[in-house]
Amino acid sequence: VILPEKKLIDRIRRQAGRRANAGIFRGIGDDTAILEITKGHQLLVTTDLCIEDVHFRRAWHPARCVGHRCLVRGLSDIAAMGGEPVACFLSLGLPSQLPQKWVDDFIHGLLNLARSFHVTLAGGDISSSEKVVADIVVTGQAPSGRAVLRSGARAGDRIYVTGELGGSAAQLQKLLAGEKITPKPSDRHFYPQPRLEAGQWLRQHGATAMIDLSDGLSTDLDHICAESRVSAVIDAAKLPIARNANLALALHGGEEYELLFTAPKKAKLPPKIADIRVTEIGEVQKRSQSATIQLRDQHGHLRPLKPQGWQHFHKSLLTPA
Amino acid sequence: VILPEKKLIDRIRRQAGRRANAGIFRGIGDDTAILEITKGHQLLVTTDLCIEDVHFRRAWHPARCVGHRCLVRGLSDIAAMGGEPVACFLSLGLPSQLPQKWVDDFIHGLLNLARSFHVTLAGGDISSSEKVVADIVVTGQAPSGRAVLRSGARAGDRIYVTGELGGSAAQLQKLLAGEKITPKPSDRHFYPQPRLEAGQWLRQHGATAMIDLSDGLSTDLDHICAESRVSAVIDAAKLPIARNANLALALHGGEEYELLFTAPKKAKLPPKIADIRVTEIGEVQKRSQSATIQLRDQHGHLRPLKPQGWQHFHKSLLTPA
Repeated sequence: VILPEKKLIDRIRRQAGRRANAGIFRGIGDDTAILEITKGHQLLVTTDLCIEDVHFRRAWHPARCVGHRCLVRGLSDIAAMGGEPVACFLSLGLPSQLPQKWVDDFIHGLLNLARSFHVTLAGGDISSSEKVVADIVVTGQAPSGRAVLRSGARAGDRIYVTGELGGSAAQLQKLLAGEKITPKPSDRHFYPQPRLEAGQWLRQHGATAMIDLSDGLSTDLDHICAESRVSAVIDAAKLPIARNANLALALHGGEEYELLFTAPKKAKLPPKIADIRVTEIGEVQKRSQSATIQLRDQHGHLRPLKPQGWQHFHKSLLTPA
Repeated sequence: VILPEKKLIDRIRRQAGRRANAGIFRGIGDDTAILEITKGHQLLVTTDLCIEDVHFRRAWHPARCVGHRCLVRGLSDIAAMGGEPVACFLSLGLPSQLPQKWVDDFIHGLLNLARSFHVTLAGGDISSSEKVVADIVVTGQAPSGRAVLRSGARAGDRIYVTGELGGSAAQLQKLLAGEKITPKPSDRHFYPQPRLEAGQWLRQHGATAMIDLSDGLSTDLDHICAESRVSAVIDAAKLPIARNANLALALHGGEEYELLFTAPKKAKLPPKIADIRVTEIGEVQKRSQSATIQLRDQHGHLRPLKPQGWQHFHKSLLTPA
């Protein structure tokens, strides 16, 4: 069972360490954290919930992997703005009968990833709860007025993604089918990596709009189209589908944490950015009333593509039972 | 039942409105919010969980009151630093069978309080969950190096509290005993007020350490003593006990959201700050090995006072069944 709250906080505080960013003036141990934002920069803030049996299952995901995945969600949002992460905050609800080892492994997975990107765990909250609930808050910064928004896509821009698509969803499908998987560090489903370096490069090199692929390509591209008031065409044949996946999973599968972005037609993008493959997959068009997103098949035929990625309170392709 | 996620977010986005602070560059609708921190100021960040049947019960607390109480926790932390709140973020887990009216009332209660302190709801996350889970994040700012920490209390300082003590816990006791209470706007338990103006005044007028009373006087004073490496003596006779409360509730009852602070002996504090009564209740002493906090009774006798306020994963005076 779990340590009493005060002891648990002291333990996490020790684990978080003093390896603070220059920007952390005061971390765990006061009513609020105190952070310094670099001159000429704006503050970025994102929050993401991870709830047991919604975002993960204890039977499928080792605690270390849950902690890792939890922080990735926030770091990936910072990456999608082209930002630099600074500090994270963890609000954690835990069943009192949970083994302390589970909590230690969870924190370990989270802090391991945090350290690799020089992010400090600077605060949070702890409570008892019936199921594990973790809300991760990540703060970051970007040069003033330079963060890459969802709203900057213009007709004629080309659409790109980093990495491969559908691999995470393919593993989720196997888990849903009852298959046992022992997570490998290279598994996108279990240990996804936030594309922070690529995101910063893209901010510096003129990406017009950007989002991270957390809900699925069809849903996340719909967010860009809605905020930019544009439509889009995707070429099925161009999608970088992961070896274990298929077209449907590449289009609608979530939790990839790759970057989906747009850039002017004349922009010359290298085939790899920060060592990650970049693929052109379609183009932005003027807003159309008939269909926000269309999919072009190998014969050149267009059909409307509805957002069918993850949506809470709604059935979706990958809704767990 | 609840709206699909996208519609729910659109609805909350409309409710949150554009009434943005000058500091909000981008609110709901992108991967992260973008905020501007005033020049010469540092960023304050706090997160607080509110979990159904731990922090509130749907049978006791109307949804509006749950939303209000949820945000108060974060605003009160900003108050305890002497800071000015800027934006809030809400991560919300909701059972899909919850009536949409409950969610509307919750958001209404939260936004009502937010507006009265010019705080913008600038982002968050939404998920399904078995019970209602709300994590509130509040960002704020304070002039660089001037936020009032828990660690600044010095031997000889006097200890003060704002307002009255034990009133919130007394109402909780009645609820636990099965009494029905129809919340009145003036009820500290149902509609506590964050002491933001008083906190800022105290920062400007030399408070040496400060914390908000969320867990209970004995526990929160213990936090100040631990961070400041001092001991403390409290005078039972001086405590401003609420009319409906008693000494035990004033010492250990949580959720008061009053400010507990220290100031040099020679500081002249007015009897009221920002219209809230201020009471001297004890003094800071050099760190003692025998007892961190002592209580002086009406006969002048000292006895050790253990922290007995709220602690998760631990039985306490007021643990709900």
